[in-house]
Amino acid sequence: MSVAKTAILPDAAARLIEELGPEIVLTGAATAPYCRDWHGDVQSDAIAVLRPRSTAEVQACVRAAAALGLGIVPQGGGTGLVLGAVPDRPAEQVVVSLERMTRIRLLDAENYSAVVEAGAVLEQFKDAVAAAGLFFPLSLGAQGSCRIGGNVSTNAGGVNVLRFGMTRELVLGLEVVLPDGQVFNGLSQLRKDNRGVDLKQLFIGGEGLYGIITAVSLKLLPAPDQVATALVALARLPDAIALYRRARHACCDLMSAFEFMPPIAMTLAQEAMPDLAMPMEATHPAYALIEISGSGLVDIDDLMQRFLESAFESGLALDGVIAQNQAQAKNLWAIREGMNIGQAQRGRHLRTDISVPLSRLADFVAEAEAAILQDQPGSTCVSYGHVGDGNVHLNVLPDPHLAPDEIDAQIHAAKKIVNNVLDRYAGSISAEHGIGRLKKPDFEARLLPVHRHLLTTLKKALDPAMTMNPGCLFDMY
Amino acid sequence: MSVAKTAILPDAAARLIEELGPEIVLTGAATAPYCRDWHGDVQSDAIAVLRPRSTAEVQACVRAAAALGLGIVPQGGGTGLVLGAVPDRPAEQVVVSLERMTRIRLLDAENYSAVVEAGAVLEQFKDAVAAAGLFFPLSLGAQGSCRIGGNVSTNAGGVNVLRFGMTRELVLGLEVVLPDGQVFNGLSQLRKDNRGVDLKQLFIGGEGLYGIITAVSLKLLPAPDQVATALVALARLPDAIALYRRARHACCDLMSAFEFMPPIAMTLAQEAMPDLAMPMEATHPAYALIEISGSGLVDIDDLMQRFLESAFESGLALDGVIAQNQAQAKNLWAIREGMNIGQAQRGRHLRTDISVPLSRLADFVAEAEAAILQDQPGSTCVSYGHVGDGNVHLNVLPDPHLAPDEIDAQIHAAKKIVNNVLDRYAGSISAEHGIGRLKKPDFEARLLPVHRHLLTTLKKALDPAMTMNPGCLFDMY
Repeated sequence: MSVAKTAILPDAAARLIEELGPEIVLTGAATAPYCRDWHGDVQSDAIAVLRPRSTAEVQACVRAAAALGLGIVPQGGGTGLVLGAVPDRPAEQVVVSLERMTRIRLLDAENYSAVVEAGAVLEQFKDAVAAAGLFFPLSLGAQGSCRIGGNVSTNAGGVNVLRFGMTRELVLGLEVVLPDGQVFNGLSQLRKDNRGVDLKQLFIGGEGLYGIITAVSLKLLPAPDQVATALVALARLPDAIALYRRARHACCDLMSAFEFMPPIAMTLAQEAMPDLAMPMEATHPAYALIEISGSGLVDIDDLMQRFLESAFESGLALDGVIAQNQAQAKNLWAIREGMNIGQAQRGRHLRTDISVPLSRLADFVAEAEAAILQDQPGSTCVSYGHVGDGNVHLNVLPDPHLAPDEIDAQIHAAKKIVNNVLDRYAGSISAEHGIGRLKKPDFEARLLPVHRHLLTTLKKALDPAMTMNPGCLFDMY
Repeated sequence: MSVAKTAILPDAAARLIEELGPEIVLTGAATAPYCRDWHGDVQSDAIAVLRPRSTAEVQACVRAAAALGLGIVPQGGGTGLVLGAVPDRPAEQVVVSLERMTRIRLLDAENYSAVVEAGAVLEQFKDAVAAAGLFFPLSLGAQGSCRIGGNVSTNAGGVNVLRFGMTRELVLGLEVVLPDGQVFNGLSQLRKDNRGVDLKQLFIGGEGLYGIITAVSLKLLPAPDQVATALVALARLPDAIALYRRARHACCDLMSAFEFMPPIAMTLAQEAMPDLAMPMEATHPAYALIEISGSGLVDIDDLMQRFLESAFESGLALDGVIAQNQAQAKNLWAIREGMNIGQAQRGRHLRTDISVPLSRLADFVAEAEAAILQDQPGSTCVSYGHVGDGNVHLNVLPDPHLAPDEIDAQIHAAKKIVNNVLDRYAGSISAEHGIGRLKKPDFEARLLPVHRHLLTTLKKALDPAMTMNPGCLFDMY
């Protein structure tokens, strides 16, 4: 994607500077880093980037942009994977970056809650929470860069969804600047508050369509002072799902992650991190990375030990390694991370983010992989993910010897094949990444008329001037 | 509340029968049971009660009522406590009861999910799920009568919210008949599905303002094959909160209930159930009823035992009883139930459903109780609830020797006092019961202009003819 910039308002940038001050408005080359995507596939542009430092300044930015008839693309850490925060009409859009609003306004350990501004980096917030003896469970590969407001706007998932839910389930309250510049003040810190329609739900996962989240009130939990991590080798994906069921029962609500990986995960991780120690000597057809965690009187190590014993007894586990210390646990997770980097190093490829009912996951993967390999025998399928949630990243690496345009054609074809199979399984084309601009065509192609009607009705009602994140999620006409 | 019925459309009932058939339409005396509230405080009336047997018949009912310009009051089991499902304009409203749509459409144990029609009784659904070896965690006093659609429309809470969340967190998908008679088909069974704006959130806790929920897709969990229940005696409410904190850490995510009760709970329970065995000989200033549950390899009995030992060591527990079998556990819970019946037997009284931040709960209760007793020394305060969620039912029983109109005046005064204190604590007037028609004045008095603006905008956009549950939650003019 690359778009020419011919401003409809030639002096829009100047007028924004005049209105908001040069402290807030970036223009020209300085906007470039705010106009590209995380993977570096897309470099777009914008009239300006606005960087407010307070909720009042966000209000001023929204009012100034709206007065000029400009679209606003709200932006957090820019780590989204679906172009939700990348402008697509550079001549008509400004980016509003929340990166300067990073303050923890309140951390009430006695209430297990915190109020944090939208621009706070997830990892920094988690560290501050940990320093207070508590725990915020959202865990993503991008947590060193992503920002809380973006996590909430995209209802981010991650590796701990299994136990703690998506971001939606961690939000107690929101402060939002609406498209008309008013502030929705819903920063409740109540764990239970059932006063009818829960307005904040509109903005969670709303991809910035109805306003800009400026601050968030979040649930915190007791810190898990015990964590046990294990890698289990298995004969095939259905066995991993069978093992998940056993673990779900055996460890009840203490299992915090259950990740499935194919054997190529090891190869990819080693390509990315040549020094990475491999935990098992032999290669196996499938792996599960399991984390159990807890605090207090429950003996987590013992639980993992006994669970693994039962996994061997059941015949499901072919081999198994329990991390003996934090370094070993980190090493096991590094395989999961390295596999992603390894895929990127192999060049352009298809990345998907799919969910199907758990009861159909193994059949879906088998069918989709077979269909792809029949069509493009030189491709490599890399299917991995949060199996317990029915969430699989079925990625396809085209034959690296192909010409660049052939690779693009294969990626395109593979996506079509996967989505066709997916539709028969009543699955989702976006289990956790959202729709943004990247998945809009696939989303719209599957949008039921009544859903489209409701989305259009909401957008017209809540943002009649179409100021907020135009071009994201769906086109109204 | 009692309202005269003078139909604006004298032949509305006849026209509904003509349109929908006598199989579906109840009129006259037969409507009475559908027009009263759970406590028996209110007997209203309606033009007719419509009892559809399928989603298509719900569509026909909505279209027929809308064509006549009638308001629709959707109704589940009628166990709500805020008049959300009781008509308030009998001459202009029909009740649409979902009681004939009770089918479990699908139970996919391998996916830990089920699809059930809105009229299914919660307890019957839970039993069916248990027969399949799984567990649906929503637990309410009314579960023998309340219906799933009502639970979702009101985002019901209950005793297990602590661990499993409000109803919202248990919903995977919805089927809803919209105010124009169209069907929103969102019966997804995916555990993770992040395709942008999550439309179903509008209807969860929406109190029927935007449509009638006809079917629900729900999360299921592994059955907790081990449950441990204990009653702990304490010196005061702050000690109960301190004990909760200890339990939250010691038992991490395995604690499924932590209920606080004052000493009068024992008296009230005995008044209601004279044969109830009292678990402790002495009376104590405060009690906590604690439940820990789990499955598989975790030893729940041992965990409870060790937790209680640590509670004694900490000096917080004055006495403690662990149920040795199911009958004893049932007996402990019967105190909690009996306390409610006992309050009802004492005659008309103030019932509240409040939440404040947990860090301020003890102060709030102390301040509110003191303010009430200063104003009305003859009253009895009964404060109990789900402390872990910051949710307290601060009820006030007026002096029974007062005349009925004096009692009503005291209830009214006590509510005002409680709400005044509550406002200073940034609390909620409805932690779990919703707003309905009963709490509408108190809700509207606290409704921020921006919230009112958003609610009005949504209602106008989604139900321009104001067909769905008019008079509930807030008045637009």
